[in-house]
Order: sequence, then structure tokens, then C-alpha cells
Amino acid sequence: MGMMKAAIFVEPNRIEIADKPIPDIGPTDALLRITTTTICGTDIHILKGEYPVERGLTIGHEPVGIIVALGSAITGFHEGERVIAGAITPCGQCFSCLDGHSAQCGGEAAGGWRFGNTIDGAQAEYLRVPDAMANLARVPETLSDEQVLMCPDIMSTGFAGAESGKIRIGDTVAIFAQGPIGLCATAGAKLSGATRIITVETVPERIAMSRAMGADTVIDFKAEDPVERIMELTAGRGVDVAIEALGTQQTFEACLRVARPGGTVSSLGVYSGKLSLPLDAFAAGLGDHRIVTTLCPGGKERMRRLIEVVGSGRVDLKPLVTHRFSLENIGAAYDLFADQRDGVLKIAITP
Amino acid sequence: MGMMKAAIFVEPNRIEIADKPIPDIGPTDALLRITTTTICGTDIHILKGEYPVERGLTIGHEPVGIIVALGSAITGFHEGERVIAGAITPCGQCFSCLDGHSAQCGGEAAGGWRFGNTIDGAQAEYLRVPDAMANLARVPETLSDEQVLMCPDIMSTGFAGAESGKIRIGDTVAIFAQGPIGLCATAGAKLSGATRIITVETVPERIAMSRAMGADTVIDFKAEDPVERIMELTAGRGVDVAIEALGTQQTFEACLRVARPGGTVSSLGVYSGKLSLPLDAFAAGLGDHRIVTTLCPGGKERMRRLIEVVGSGRVDLKPLVTHRFSLENIGAAYDLFADQRDGVLKIAITP
Amino acid sequence: MGMMKAAIFVEPNRIEIADKPIPDIGPTDALLRITTTTICGTDIHILKGEYPVERGLTIGHEPVGIIVALGSAITGFHEGERVIAGAITPCGQCFSCLDGHSAQCGGEAAGGWRFGNTIDGAQAEYLRVPDAMANLARVPETLSDEQVLMCPDIMSTGFAGAESGKIRIGDTVAIFAQGPIGLCATAGAKLSGATRIITVETVPERIAMSRAMGADTVIDFKAEDPVERIMELTAGRGVDVAIEALGTQQTFEACLRVARPGGTVSSLGVYSGKLSLPLDAFAAGLGDHRIVTTLCPGGKERMRRLIEVVGSGRVDLKPLVTHRFSLENIGAAYDLFADQRDGVLKIAITP
Amino acid sequence: MGMMKAAIFVEPNRIEIADKPIPDIGPTDALLRITTTTICGTDIHILKGEYPVERGLTIGHEPVGIIVALGSAITGFHEGERVIAGAITPCGQCFSCLDGHSAQCGGEAAGGWRFGNTIDGAQAEYLRVPDAMANLARVPETLSDEQVLMCPDIMSTGFAGAESGKIRIGDTVAIFAQGPIGLCATAGAKLSGATRIITVETVPERIAMSRAMGADTVIDFKAEDPVERIMELTAGRGVDVAIEALGTQQTFEACLRVARPGGTVSSLGVYSGKLSLPLDAFAAGLGDHRIVTTLCPGGKERMRRLIEVVGSGRVDLKPLVTHRFSLENIGAAYDLFADQRDGVLKIAITP
Repeated sequence: MGMMKAAIFVEPNRIEIADKPIPDIGPTDALLRITTTTICGTDIHILKGEYPVERGLTIGHEPVGIIVALGSAITGFHEGERVIAGAITPCGQCFSCLDGHSAQCGGEAAGGWRFGNTIDGAQAEYLRVPDAMANLARVPETLSDEQVLMCPDIMSTGFAGAESGKIRIGDTVAIFAQGPIGLCATAGAKLSGATRIITVETVPERIAMSRAMGADTVIDFKAEDPVERIMELTAGRGVDVAIEALGTQQTFEACLRVARPGGTVSSLGVYSGKLSLPLDAFAAGLGDHRIVTTLCPGGKERMRRLIEVVGSGRVDLKPLVTHRFSLENIGAAYDLFADQRDGVLKIAITP
Repeated sequence: MGMMKAAIFVEPNRIEIADKPIPDIGPTDALLRITTTTICGTDIHILKGEYPVERGLTIGHEPVGIIVALGSAITGFHEGERVIAGAITPCGQCFSCLDGHSAQCGGEAAGGWRFGNTIDGAQAEYLRVPDAMANLARVPETLSDEQVLMCPDIMSTGFAGAESGKIRIGDTVAIFAQGPIGLCATAGAKLSGATRIITVETVPERIAMSRAMGADTVIDFKAEDPVERIMELTAGRGVDVAIEALGTQQTFEACLRVARPGGTVSSLGVYSGKLSLPLDAFAAGLGDHRIVTTLCPGGKERMRRLIEVVGSGRVDLKPLVTHRFSLENIGAAYDLFADQRDGVLKIAITP
Repeated sequence: MGMMKAAIFVEPNRIEIADKPIPDIGPTDALLRITTTTICGTDIHILKGEYPVERGLTIGHEPVGIIVALGSAITGFHEGERVIAGAITPCGQCFSCLDGHSAQCGGEAAGGWRFGNTIDGAQAEYLRVPDAMANLARVPETLSDEQVLMCPDIMSTGFAGAESGKIRIGDTVAIFAQGPIGLCATAGAKLSGATRIITVETVPERIAMSRAMGADTVIDFKAEDPVERIMELTAGRGVDVAIEALGTQQTFEACLRVARPGGTVSSLGVYSGKLSLPLDAFAAGLGDHRIVTTLCPGGKERMRRLIEVVGSGRVDLKPLVTHRFSLENIGAAYDLFADQRDGVLKIAITP
Repeated sequence: MGMMKAAIFVEPNRIEIADKPIPDIGPTDALLRITTTTICGTDIHILKGEYPVERGLTIGHEPVGIIVALGSAITGFHEGERVIAGAITPCGQCFSCLDGHSAQCGGEAAGGWRFGNTIDGAQAEYLRVPDAMANLARVPETLSDEQVLMCPDIMSTGFAGAESGKIRIGDTVAIFAQGPIGLCATAGAKLSGATRIITVETVPERIAMSRAMGADTVIDFKAEDPVERIMELTAGRGVDVAIEALGTQQTFEACLRVARPGGTVSSLGVYSGKLSLPLDAFAAGLGDHRIVTTLCPGGKERMRRLIEVVGSGRVDLKPLVTHRFSLENIGAAYDLFADQRDGVLKIAITP
């Protein structure tokens, strides 16, 4: 096969465009020509060397593209169709997948996350999608690439924060951090029937976007203590569900502190360093608390549902795409995104 | 009314028998003459001053007794009936109770735990039961006091460890510590359909009892590393549900280490000091883990169900009563229980 | 005590205003002075003699009022507060309530429904609320009587249709009949994250209101076959959840026919006559279908949540109040409501 | 390839041994040499022409066998391994499978049931297993063919009756009919923590086996009315879960009649003719009832769990194998099984 451009991990602090062969495909794979992709916060961890991947690996796990080849065992799809695949590509056929834990595919922690982690990813001209039968989701003509660009990862992850929290109609929900995933968690909480949504953020553009996504109150944590403020707003009752969308001790702990007895902490963050459970907030283990972590759900049924949400107009995530770069200039995009300059939320990358 | 004997908290390291007035009752209360009660691990924390209660408070939260008086608003019960009440006595009518979180009655952490904590308890000749309509459960004549003595607390708590873990048929379950609550968790796991139960303990009498309650394998943590051994026994897969029944960093952390991706840590222990989440075991937050804490469920429906379990013969908890003392000699019982001498598991106390 | 006006069931086809003594209250009761109430479809069944109640009973189960007296065992409320109580008034303390089935209070089918069924109801100047601790819910000053008038019954019932259906984000939902309860089911489905809501109705005012409540498509069953149309709209897939909001064989059966394999029929209707399960639609019992019926959830926590929904502005049910009558003229209101004349949805009745 | 013997459907009332080519396999298939299989009640429906299948189809959906060939896309298995596959063989990769409804694979009612229904089945010398990655489950050497012979269908189905019923510790459960599936439902109910199990049957051998599987009381429906007797045994309360394991109006209706308000009817039967819901038993739709149907869960994770149950010794289903025939004599086996002569429960068939 021919050659293509791809953004590869060279070494810590170096992700660069390189020439790589267009991937071969096996009987259960599909090959996509990428039309739009994006950069995720996790990619920044990879860039900085905080999350280890093999040198030479193509980065990226948020593909929108056109099918250009299909393995011999694939049915029901054809070349030329525009599709997405989730950041997580479960096989659907291992013990974990069949048990409803497809993000932990193969029984490995985060085993379903393969693109840009254990196999070549989406920041490239072409992408091999493994277990394509389980992972390709058609995009209707009425939706643009950018409209579905959030489905593979941040929308799936953010919504899952609300879903794993088991938010019910009439719940009060707090969401810590309003980056792209936190904003999607806010949208997901609203879609789930939360009637009071309190978010915590300090960047002005994100505060404004948080309101647009459904926040009733946004607390600027630089201006006031969010735990105190939330307890005040809830008359000392606490919230039913607290969603952690950053990955720090401070936000995790704040979640526990504002969750009412019997309440839930739904954690989306990727933590590093140490994480501790303050026993006062944890009621020494007697508070009937639930702490649940959720990795981005994948698979084509999940993608189909998220595309439905977009298509229904219930949620409009297009404003999250704040910048656009070509694949060749992805280096500049990484710089912008890593520095969180210029009100950046998500960057559309087009090969 | 007359006077009665009661075991009261005098000051740290002093629980003594004293004379107190027999309690008055209000319209929604019942008065029991205690026929059998027992001492709980939590009472030892109170004795040592590690869990603060008011001086003069009557201790104990595991009552079996005879109704001797009923408030004016109570219907459906009559004097002379033998009953139990749970350690947790929910009102059934507050926001938390009506929302299914009755152990957090009133919206306070552990708010449903009143006996021997916020009101006078069961280690006495008489006991006032608040919200009696919600809390009195009849004992059938066919069952002895000792047969139902575990229902109010350890059976309810231990079983809840299995229930909150959402154990399914065919699950592998690990249970850390086989004291009275851990043993009940083992029995509860077996009743819930776990087909492989691995427990961790070192006291020989408890190891034997663990097998009797349903453990397939008991690991002596002084002889081998339980985490390593469990991973070996499960061929590296880990367990579906890990139950913590002690309340230490070590056992909590071990639970996280053996829980498979997508698995559950069901925590029953009362923790003190600090509690940390090792990020490797926690998969940095990406493992779809669930950590759930459960306070002993109470209320008469819970008690009715547990009495059914006892009556059905599915589980025989009588062997857990290893010693018997009169209320007057409760001091000696506290000594024995605090020291875990003589293979003690539970001590029946009779006024 | 003095006398009051009340709408009583005299005999089939006669509900009339009569003079009755203002109710006495016991230690666990409250007495409300009704400020606004309404008529329910069930009241029409009572009027027509289709649902039997005792002669002389005061009808009505949707109270908004002011506390004028409190039983001796009631705490936390005071006279003069404006409150609502649910149509269903669970005790919170029986086996059923403590087991999470409070609408089936006392273990009797629909046992929690007492107002205007087994005790005097709300279409009167005064109302005795039993188990007041479990049932009084404060109304914030910012909300009018009419804004919370739907909470006691139709909003609670309609939302429960969505909740029992376990609607998830991205679901397609069909709702049969858009009377007051069906309209609330539509609002509840939208609040629960359904992204495609298809309703079935023929009355023009109700079709318009259905769109306002969240329907994406309204099928006029007089113009086209709703089952065929729904299968067409879903490309043969069927819906995830079908909600029955009328209580007829035809709508029940249609629900089964449009529910996909693995889907749910959430039934709200009160059926009379016979009900049959067409085996083709039921896949001969092999389709992993779930049929679930739900009686209006009550209790003060439920009311609190619904009041939160109203207060949040997420749903505006005020337009459902299409007419207003004084209690004295309730006869005319019954006529209008029974005939479904004049675009009537709900009628506010003020003593 | 060579030829093999297979039991094929010739026409109504004729299933005969015929010569057929050994199946070819594609990249995602496996080929098994059958070592043991059995006949299911459904096969009798096929035999009688009550359930239509294509003429010439090989019947049977309960395979134990040895892998003799593997498709090119299969990894992790090798020739010579002894395995089972479920009666239901989900693909794991369609929208239904990825949504947790794998028995409804492909979105078709009962779409996951392929063996002996839409593709050639297991009553043959060789069997092609589609989607082998998702469906082959290794049998440990310590277990015999007959010990795991119930896993593919009746154990999976019967247990699912208990699981879908969401039986909790302390539940009272009634199970109507104690044929092979009903007996497995009884075993499953016991494993799930039901403490009072009441079964209904009249065949003496099945009554005896019912007790062995966990029934506390067996009602002979020819000697007394089971509904009356169950209401008596439960003091008018009814049961928490009623399991239908026959597929008739009478048993379905009886289930509804004995289910308490708030209770569940878990239906396993395959119905023919008409099915009606008696409205008194159904509380006119106001009883918070749940009716749930469940098709046999399949897939290798399900099989793995059931093999674990067998291996753990928690349940011993070997006594259900009452007769043994060679494949050549399967005609006689069908006769015996169809007539329910001679205490027959399940018949092991060996090619």
C-alpha cells in the first residue's frame, strides 16, 4: 500500500507529523480515510510523557472518516460510507464485553482503549478500525463532521458521568471542572433530568459555555470556596450526584464533601500522584456513599445513540469546536490546546 | 415509672451497670423489656473513647425483647409480643427514608443509628423504641432469642455487603476479615449465588467458621499475601466483588487490588485515620470500578426478611454465639470481647 | 368543629356539594384548608359508578392548601404553611412502604391511594391528611397554587411512566394518548433523555400541547395507523419504551406491537373489561419484553422533587390548567371535564 | 468434506436421521465434533409442526463437543479442546448485542436463537458454531459432558427466570411447573437467596426432584388449587416473584394472581393460542406489577458462569439426565420425551 501522513509520538514533548504506510487490514477490520479528528486532554498527557505509549505510535482516538476498505468478514457496510468509531473499540466477544464491561475489553483495565494507545490512532490520513462490525457507526448526511466529532470521546465520556451517577428527575448535581468533558457532563446531567445543576470553573469562556450547556449556577472557585457555596445553595443537604471531571485530589475530595449521605460521586478524571479519601467527608464509611469511575463507553450502538442525540437537536455541541487546523499543522494545535490559550475547547483537525 | 439496670458510658474505658429510670414513651414509641442483647465491635470503639457518645448514655443496639407498653398512635402490635428492632431505627417518613436511604434518616450521615448512639440503647432491662410502627418485627415462637440475635446488626450489615456488591450467580467474591460481620458477609455472598468465595483471616476459630459459612478458600494473611494469592486463584482475572469487613487501609486497599476492571468494592468497615486510593489498583480512575459503602439496613421489613432467612434454615448463625453473660456481668463480657480471647465471636447478654 | 362544603359521591352519576363537619384530626394527622384542587379522570370513573366508593365520601385527591391544625406527634411543620400532599399518601412505616412500594401501602393493591377513595378527599374546604409527617410538602412562595397543582397526581403519574420505563439518553419513546397524564409522560420522557418522542392523539388542542411538552412527531390515529407509522418512523426497529396512558385494549396492544425485542411497555392506564396479550406482538414470550405498571408515586420526597422540577422551569405545566371553577360550581366542572369539551385539560377548583 | 449423520426435520411429526455434508466453516466460525447433546421441549414443538422451521434443517441447540476446526479469524482456542456453546449464539457486535439484549441478536425477536432454528443444529455428528469467538466456552477436565449438558439451555433459561425476577435475599417465590426448565428455575431461585420456594407440579418424579432442587413446599395442582394454597401459605400476602415455566394461560394467570402488589411475574414459557391478563389479578393496572419475559441467555461469558456454578458443586443437575440414547436411536428418544414417559427429564444423546 501507499504512504500517509500521521502524527506520531517521537519522545516526551515531541509529537510530529511523519510518513507511515497506510495500514493493512485483516478480515474483521475496516480502513477509514480520516476526514476530521481532534486532540484530547489524554493526548496532552501522552505528549508530556505522563502517559506512556510506544515510540512511533500514531496518536488520536476521535475519528470521523470514509470507509475505503473492508475486511472479508465484514457485512452490512460498504465503501464510501461516512462513519465514526468510538475512542474505545470493544471486540464485543470477550468475557468482559459479553458481561457489559466493554470498555474493559479483554479483562484489562481500560483494555478497550486501543486507538492511539495500543494501536495506531486517528491523527492520520488513514485509520485501521479493529472489530469493525462492532465499531463503525454511520453518520447521516444531515450532520456535519464537526457535529459528530464529539461523539467518539468527550460526549460519550461526559454523558457517562451523568449516566453512571444514575441521575434522576429532580436531582441536584454538582460538576467539578468545565473543560470539554465536564461541559458534556453538564449537558448529560440536564438531559437526565437534573433540575439543579451547579458547576465549578474559573475560565470565563468555560463559565459562559457551562451556562449554555445547562448549568443553573456556576461557581468560580477562585472567587469562593465551592464546597461551602454548594452546601449553602443546598441548605446543608448536599447534592445527589457529584461529578468529577478533572482528575485531581482537590476536585475528587470536594465531590465527596458535597455528596449527601446516600449520594454518588461519579468520577471521570484520570488521576495521577496520590488520591485520598477524607474520612470526615466519607462518613468513616457509614454514609451509604457510592463512588463510581467510568471510562468512555464505545461500540457502534453507543455511537448510534449519541448521533441520535446530536440529530435530535436536544444538545448542540458544535460551539465546543473553537479552532480548526490542518493535520500538517497539528503541532501548532497541540501547543494551543496544551496551553489552553485563546478560549480553546476542542480543535477540529482535517487531513 | 420504676428503675432499671443499664450499661452506661461513664467515660473512656468505663462502661458500667447503673440504675436509670425506665424510659417514658410518647405516642409513636414502644417500650420493650429486653430478654437478650449483645455487644458489637462499635461498642468497643465507644468504650475506648474512639467513637464519641454522651456520658451517661445507655450502650447497645441489638435488642430482642417483649413489648410492655405501646404509644397511643401504635396499631397492629400488642403487649406481650416478642419482637426485635434493628440497630438502625428509621422513621420511614423523612426525605431520606422516603427516598430509599433509611440508614441516613433525617439526611444526616448514619442518622438512622440511634440506639446507643444518640438515644439510650439496648444493654438494659428496658428499651424505648422510637417510630415503633416502622421498627418492631415479631419473632415467631419457633425461633429462640439467640437465633434472631444477629438480625438487628451483624446479619443485616454482613448481608448488605453482599447485596450492595450486587453479587450475581457465578460470581467470584473475596471477603477481607472474618469477624462476626465478615462471617455474615460470607453467608450473604453464598446466599446471593457467589460460586467461589475466598476469605481472608488468621484466627483459627474464625477460619473454621468461615468455611462453615460458605468460604471455598480461606487465606491466612499471616501465611501468605492475600492479594497475590487471590490473583493466582483467579488466574489473574481478579474478583467480581471484594467485601471489606474490617475498616483498615490495608484491607480496603487489598479489596481495590483484587477487584477486576469493572468490579465492585463493597465496604462495610468503620474507618479511622486516613484512607487512600492507590492509583495503580484504581486504574487511575479508568477501570470502571464501583466503591460502595453500606450502613446496616434497619426497619421492620428488613428484620422480617432476616427472620425469614433464619426460619428457613438457609443459614445457621447460632454458632456465632460463643459466650453468654448476664447483664450484671457485662463488664466481663466487654473485657472478653475487646480482647478477642477464647474464640469469642458474639456474646449473648441476658438481663 | 364547624361545618364545611364538600363534593360528595351521592350515587352513580351524582356528585354534589354537601355540608359535612370539618374533619377531626388524630396525633399523626394534619388539617388543611384547601386553596386549590382539581378533578381527575379517575373521579369521572367514580362519578359514573365504574369505580366503586362509599356513598357520602368526599371526592378528590389533588390538594393544595394551608395547614390549619397539626396532630400532637407532628414536628417540623407549623400552621399557616402552604403545602401540597400527593394523591397517594403512604404511611412510610408498613412492610410495603419500607420495601420501596409505597403506592401499595399496607400490602393492598393501590393501598396508598386513600384521598377520595377510602377516606374523604380534597374537593372540599378542608382536608385531613393522614401520616402527615410523610406527606406534607412545602410550596415555595415563588410558585403559585396552579403551578404545583399537577404535582399530586398527573405529573407524578406521567413522569413515573417515563421513570418506570427506564428511559435512557438516546431512546426512542412512543406515548399513546395525550390527555393530562399522557402529556406529563411526554414531558417526563423528554426530561429523561429520550431523543425521539412519538405520541398518538387526535384532539387538536392535545396534539398542539403534545408538541409543546416535547413530542417530535404526533400521530393522529384517526388519520393513520399508529403502529404502522411508528414502525415506519423507526425503520422497522420499534421503540425502546412504549407508554400506555389511556387504559384500553387497543392502546395496550399497540404498545406491545411497537416495543422492540428487549423493549419495555410502561403502563399507566386504568383498565376495565378484559385485557389480552397478542402473542405475535409478545413474541410468544421469547422477546425479552418487560411490561410494568405504575401507580402515582406519593409521599413528601416525591412531591419535593416535583416541586423542584416546576421551580427549575425545566417543564411548564401551567398551560394544562385550561379552566377555573369555584367549588360551589364543581358540578359544571364535572360536566365539562367528563365531556372533554372546549379543549379542557385540567380545571382548577377553588373553595 | 465428508458426510455425517444428523437428525433433521422432514415434515410435521417426522424428525429422522439423515446423511448430510459436514459443515464448511467461514473465518469467524468453529466446527465441533459433537460428543453429547440433548432434546429440548422446543424440539417437540418443532417435531409437531407447532413451531415452523425449514424442511431438512438439523434440529438441536444444546451442544457439548470437541473443536475440530477453527476459522481464520479465531484466536485463543485450539483444536482438540472440549467446549460447549449456548443454545443462543449472539454475535456480540450488533446493536442489540452491544445494548445488552444479546438473545434478541440483530434486533429480531429471538434473533439469537440460531441452532436448530435458522441454521443447522446440534443433533448431529458435527456442528458449525457461528461467531465462535463469542460463543465457545471451555469445559474443565474435571467435569463430564453430562454435568455441563444443561448449561446451553435449560440451566441458562431456568436461572434467568430467577435473575430476571430480581429475587432478593428473603423473598418468597412461586414456580409454576417443574419440568427441566422449572426445576432449574427452582435451583436458580435458591441460589439467588429466596428463603421460601413454593413450586407447583403433579408428576411424582418431578415433585421429588423439585424438593431436591430447593422447593420448600410443592403443591400438587391436581390435589389442591395452587393459587388458594399459595395465598394461604403466605397469609394473604402473595409472593414476591412468580415464575412461569410452562407456557399456558392457566399458569400465566396463576402467576399474576399470586404476585403481591409490587411483585414480579417472570415468564419463561413459550405461549401459543391466546394469552389474557385478568384485570382483577392485574389490579386494573394499578398494582405496580412487573411482567418480564426472558429468552435463554447465551454467549461464552454466560456459559463460563454456569460452568462455574456446576464446578462449585452449589447445584447438582446431573440427576436431571434420566435417560441415554445414541444419535442413531434419537427417534426413540423423541418418542419417550414427547410422551413424558418413564419419569423422563432430560435425555443424553451421543453420536
